Amino acid sequence: MLTLFHHSFCPHSRFVRLALGEYGLEVNLVEERVWERREAFLALNPAGATPVLIGEDQLAVPGAAIIAEYLDETCGAGLGERRLLPATVRERIEVRRLMAWFNEKFFEEASNPLVTERIYKRFINEEDGGGAPAAEVIRAAKANVRYHLAYIGWLAQRRNFLAGDRLSYADLAAAAHLSAIDYLGDVPWIEDDAAKAWYARVKSRPSFRPLLSEWLAGVPASPTYIDLDF
Amino acid sequence: MLTLFHHSFCPHSRFVRLALGEYGLEVNLVEERVWERREAFLALNPAGATPVLIGEDQLAVPGAAIIAEYLDETCGAGLGERRLLPATVRERIEVRRLMAWFNEKFFEEASNPLVTERIYKRFINEEDGGGAPAAEVIRAAKANVRYHLAYIGWLAQRRNFLAGDRLSYADLAAAAHLSAIDYLGDVPWIEDDAAKAWYARVKSRPSFRPLLSEWLAGVPASPTYIDLDF
Repeated sequence: MLTLFHHSFCPHSRFVRLALGEYGLEVNLVEERVWERREAFLALNPAGATPVLIGEDQLAVPGAAIIAEYLDETCGAGLGERRLLPATVRERIEVRRLMAWFNEKFFEEASNPLVTERIYKRFINEEDGGGAPAAEVIRAAKANVRYHLAYIGWLAQRRNFLAGDRLSYADLAAAAHLSAIDYLGDVPWIEDDAAKAWYARVKSRPSFRPLLSEWLAGVPASPTYIDLDF
Repeated sequence: MLTLFHHSFCPHSRFVRLALGEYGLEVNLVEERVWERREAFLALNPAGATPVLIGEDQLAVPGAAIIAEYLDETCGAGLGERRLLPATVRERIEVRRLMAWFNEKFFEEASNPLVTERIYKRFINEEDGGGAPAAEVIRAAKANVRYHLAYIGWLAQRRNFLAGDRLSYADLAAAAHLSAIDYLGDVPWIEDDAAKAWYARVKSRPSFRPLLSEWLAGVPASPTYIDLDF
């Protein structure tokens, strides 16, 4: 069976879990607290970041984008028309563009600062940068969420799914990052009906269920988090 | 013919130019000053970043990693054993891991701050964040260059090229970022003989020549920059 080194609030780990769910692949989850910089983990991924998937032959596959390519190359054709990285050149560019948009841009501008301030800093010692959340960082990240949400709504009004007619890695990436911050109550769904309707469809997929049932002790999920008709 | 929207000091643009050179593909270069946020360019790449390759059928391919995948999928097999993203699953993971290491980690920690402070800020208005370089940013980035150089040396001592036996996207990514800051004199080659010897080999490839002959008015290249026996 596959093993995934992950963290429940790492948006990239969530993306990989959604993808594995869509492929119908079972996985052992191992929680990695990357800020502890465990040596055995650094040997798997010198960049020291989650997620790392341990695939066939104990091959360590590091990072959301590389895992997505690996899964497409090893299992993608098996999904046929439901392939998460579709077959044509044009579609592959658009899916990869949006996957990178969320895994890099949304991560940097919104999901990473929010998760770092609100979750990770609880577990990190003060001398290593942990402690109370920085209000100004949270304020800036929440402002960024609004323009990303508008972009998602804009795409969702023009297409059935974010990158085209069918569900793709683009939807899973967007939904993974949104889900992490939706838990924290940081998504103003009321601002964009199209984005909300798109998210409700993705969230109701079976691949999403495991994420919705994991709660962090001491940090209650927002009212919209598990409600499929939020 | 292909068109590349690029900037001479954008390390990701340099990476794509090296790759195109290795594929033997000719390209029209169009300089894009991304800080001007030109509307027609944002339509090509909403992320507003160089490089963007205009491929067959006027397809816009945005970003170094996506262009690398596009070129591999459309021209990779034609290179045979010299394929820049090799054929086996294991090799593809390692090449992609190192390509991301340089295009993301090295970029964020070293090449982007150095190029931004020393080059881009000359062209940006003071009210938009331009002006004099920030000494503390440059100092931090230069410290980061040293540990990246040591990692390159470590890899180069164990392998013929950075990701394995043959030249790959990993070498082109590392060399692209290094070349941008080598122009500025920010690579302490004296600290690592293995890294230096590896770079000298990559730099002597024909694909490198066009980069070495482009100089920026008012910013002389460092003595090591064009010297192949630096």
